[in-house]
Amino acid sequence: MSINQVAIVCGTHGNEITGVYLMKKWQKDNHPISRDSFKTELIHGNPKAFEINRRYVDNDLNRQFSSDKLADESLGSYEESRAKVLNQLIGPKGDSKSDLVIDLHTTTSNMGPTLLMPQSGTFYNLLAAYVKSNMPEAVIFCDEDHKPNDEHHLLCTTGRYGVIVEVGPVPQSVLRHDVFEQSERLTQIILDFVDLYNRNSLPDLPTQIEAFRFITSVTLPLDDNGERIGMVHQNVQDNDFSELHPGDPLFITFDGEVIPYQGEKTVYTAFVNEAAYYDNNLATSLMEKFNLQIK
Amino acid sequence: MSINQVAIVCGTHGNEITGVYLMKKWQKDNHPISRDSFKTELIHGNPKAFEINRRYVDNDLNRQFSSDKLADESLGSYEESRAKVLNQLIGPKGDSKSDLVIDLHTTTSNMGPTLLMPQSGTFYNLLAAYVKSNMPEAVIFCDEDHKPNDEHHLLCTTGRYGVIVEVGPVPQSVLRHDVFEQSERLTQIILDFVDLYNRNSLPDLPTQIEAFRFITSVTLPLDDNGERIGMVHQNVQDNDFSELHPGDPLFITFDGEVIPYQGEKTVYTAFVNEAAYYDNNLATSLMEKFNLQIK
Repeated sequence: MSINQVAIVCGTHGNEITGVYLMKKWQKDNHPISRDSFKTELIHGNPKAFEINRRYVDNDLNRQFSSDKLADESLGSYEESRAKVLNQLIGPKGDSKSDLVIDLHTTTSNMGPTLLMPQSGTFYNLLAAYVKSNMPEAVIFCDEDHKPNDEHHLLCTTGRYGVIVEVGPVPQSVLRHDVFEQSERLTQIILDFVDLYNRNSLPDLPTQIEAFRFITSVTLPLDDNGERIGMVHQNVQDNDFSELHPGDPLFITFDGEVIPYQGEKTVYTAFVNEAAYYDNNLATSLMEKFNLQIK
Repeated sequence: MSINQVAIVCGTHGNEITGVYLMKKWQKDNHPISRDSFKTELIHGNPKAFEINRRYVDNDLNRQFSSDKLADESLGSYEESRAKVLNQLIGPKGDSKSDLVIDLHTTTSNMGPTLLMPQSGTFYNLLAAYVKSNMPEAVIFCDEDHKPNDEHHLLCTTGRYGVIVEVGPVPQSVLRHDVFEQSERLTQIILDFVDLYNRNSLPDLPTQIEAFRFITSVTLPLDDNGERIGMVHQNVQDNDFSELHPGDPLFITFDGEVIPYQGEKTVYTAFVNEAAYYDNNLATSLMEKFNLQIK
C-alpha cells in the first residue's frame, strides 16, 4: 500500500528550534519536501511552547498521543488540547489520513543523526536499510516495546507509519549548522525512500544492518531526600552508542567518588545527560546492539 | 590592602546550574573555600530562577548592578529587587564589605575555563598571571571598557574587586563532569591566589601573559522583518578564542549561502552561538588578543 500523504511535524518541543527553522526554509522554497508520488504537509507542533522558548507549556506534548488520552476530553491542559487538535489534523490515530508522520527533534546528547522508530515491520526495515546505505553515520534506534499502537504515546504514532528524526548534540534553544544540515539531510533521505518505495524502485539493500534497541533507563544518583548527589562520568559523557561494560565508570558524585555500571552485560548508551530528562533525573538510556534483518 | 572577605555567588542565572551544585558541595564539606587569611561567604544569586529552571524570572539579574539602577526604587521586577537585596548583602557597591566577589557562570559556548575580569589594575594583573601559571588552559578575558565602576551593571562589580568564572560548553540546565571540575578548580586557584596575596607570598609570576580584550558583538543575519535568516557557520562554531580573518566564513543562511566576516583585521571569537544571547540575536563576541603586562 503506497504512501500518499506525509506529515512533517516541527517544533513538537518548543526549545528544539532546528525543525522550526527547517519548516520556515521549506515553506519558502519551491516544495523541496514534495515528491511526485506523494504530498507532504508541514505542521508546527507546539507554537506556543516555541514562543515562550520552553520544551512545553503544561506537559510534554510528545507523551499525549495514546488513544485513551486522545479520547479523554477531561484532559484539558495546553498540550493535552493541542494533541487532540494535531490528531484531528494529521490522524486520527488508528485510521490516519497521514500514511507517514515524520517528527523532527533535537537532543543535547551526542547522538548524531538518529532515526528513531517506535514500531517495527517491513516498511521500517526497508526504510532503515535505505537510510543506513545513504547516510552511514546515521544511527538506527528501535524503540519497539511491542505495545499495541493505541497505547503508544508519541506524536508520530498518529500516522499509519511514524518515525522521529533525532539529531544532536545541540543545546536547547540553539541552532547549530551541523545539526541543521544533518536534520535536513536525514529528512530528505526518508522522503527519497518513500518515493522509491511508492514506485517500487528501491535499490538493492543490505540484508541486515546494525541497529540499537532500547533496554531501560538509569537514573542519576540521589540521596534519601531525592536530591542529586552526582552526575554522568566524563567517560560516558558524549559517548552515546558506545560500549558500557560492567564495572566501567558511570557516575561521579560531587565529592569525587566514581560509581561504576553494575549491570551484568555490556550495553550501549543513548540520550546521555539529555537536558530535558533532568525533570525525571534520567541519566542515560541503555541499549543493546543487534543486527536488524531487512527481509 | 588585604582581602578579608570574599563572596562567591552561584546561580546568578537560574539555568546555569553548575555553580549551584558546587555551592551545595562546598556547604557540606569542611569549608574548602575558606583560607586562614580571609573568610568566604556563599550566596545563591537567583534561587527563584533556579527553581523554575530559567535564566531569569523578569530580567537578566547580571545586568542590574549599575549604581543608578540599584538606587532606583521604582525598578521593582523580581531581579531588580533581588539585585538590591544582594547589594545590601555583599556590597553596597562603592563601599563594599566584600573585598572580592566571584560570580560563577557557565556558557553553551566552547570557551573552556575562562576568567572574566570587567575591570583592570594591579590586583587583577597578578590574579590573571597566577591563574595562567597554575591552569594554563584557562583563558584571560578582559572586558575593560574603562567605565567608572558605578556604571558597570554586572553583579561582581558590587565588590571592591570582582571577577566572573565562566566555563563551557555545557547546555543550559545540564551538569557536565568536566565543566563542574574546571569551575571548581578555577575558583580554588583564585582563592589560593588571594591567600598568597594577603600573606605577601606570591611566587614569581610571568611579566606578561596572553589575554583577550572585548571589541564588539556581531548579530545573526536578519531579514527586513527582523527574522533570522541564518546561523553561525560551522567553521566558527566551537572555535571560541580562535582566529577569524577577513573573508572567513562567519554565517550560513538557511538557504546555504555563506556570509563572510567583513572586518578589516584578524580578530578572535568568544561566546560563539551562546544560547542566552539569542534574545538579542547576538552571534558572537569579537575579541583582540594582546599581551597583558603584569608589573
